[in-house]
Amino acid sequence: MIVKPYSEVPAENVETAGAEKVTIRWLLGKGSPAPNFYLRLIEVQPGGHSPYHAHPAEHEIFILEGHGRINAKGKSHPVGPGTFALVEPNEEHQFENTGSTTLKFLCLVPIER
Amino acid sequence: MIVKPYSEVPAENVETAGAEKVTIRWLLGKGSPAPNFYLRLIEVQPGGHSPYHAHPAEHEIFILEGHGRINAKGKSHPVGPGTFALVEPNEEHQFENTGSTTLKFLCLVPIER
Repeated sequence: MIVKPYSEVPAENVETAGAEKVTIRWLLGKGSPAPNFYLRLIEVQPGGHSPYHAHPAEHEIFILEGHGRINAKGKSHPVGPGTFALVEPNEEHQFENTGSTTLKFLCLVPIER
Repeated sequence: MIVKPYSEVPAENVETAGAEKVTIRWLLGKGSPAPNFYLRLIEVQPGGHSPYHAHPAEHEIFILEGHGRINAKGKSHPVGPGTFALVEPNEEHQFENTGSTTLKFLCLVPIER
């Protein structure tokens, strides 16, 4: 069993093209015994955003703090604390902070085999 | 894409033997297009707890609000907002609210195939 405060896991800069002011903490990632899916905590600073992109793996999302939107094909969804989301496989998406505080959310992905 | 406040998903009583004052919201569950794992939000009222049990599926946990502990074989782990946990397959565990407010956490499980 692993039990730990998320703050003990370092935040790494996301260097992917199209990402601005985004960090990621791999709470349960490659080095962990998680057998099926990874738990990550993502922080987007005011004015920042993730890339607008799509990929074969889904995301399951839960917003912890802050305000922003998930931009999708032809639609933009406002999000705030307590919003959850499913980004389906191959669906275009972008997370954007539209507020004045950090947008903080959990983002889970399946382990690729 | 699904984007929704968790409060729109009804809280169901957990009737399992050994569960006291526990409700569950299946945010992304059986009826959803989630392809690999389910997202559930669990609330335990003060004095309540989940069963002390084990099962082949792991749990990935993130504490949103409240205080309590995860009881495991020979050990008890205090938890509060921002604590994450991995309960490994077949590991004995119990979630217990030791505080005076609702213990609220996300609990993810793989889809059984």
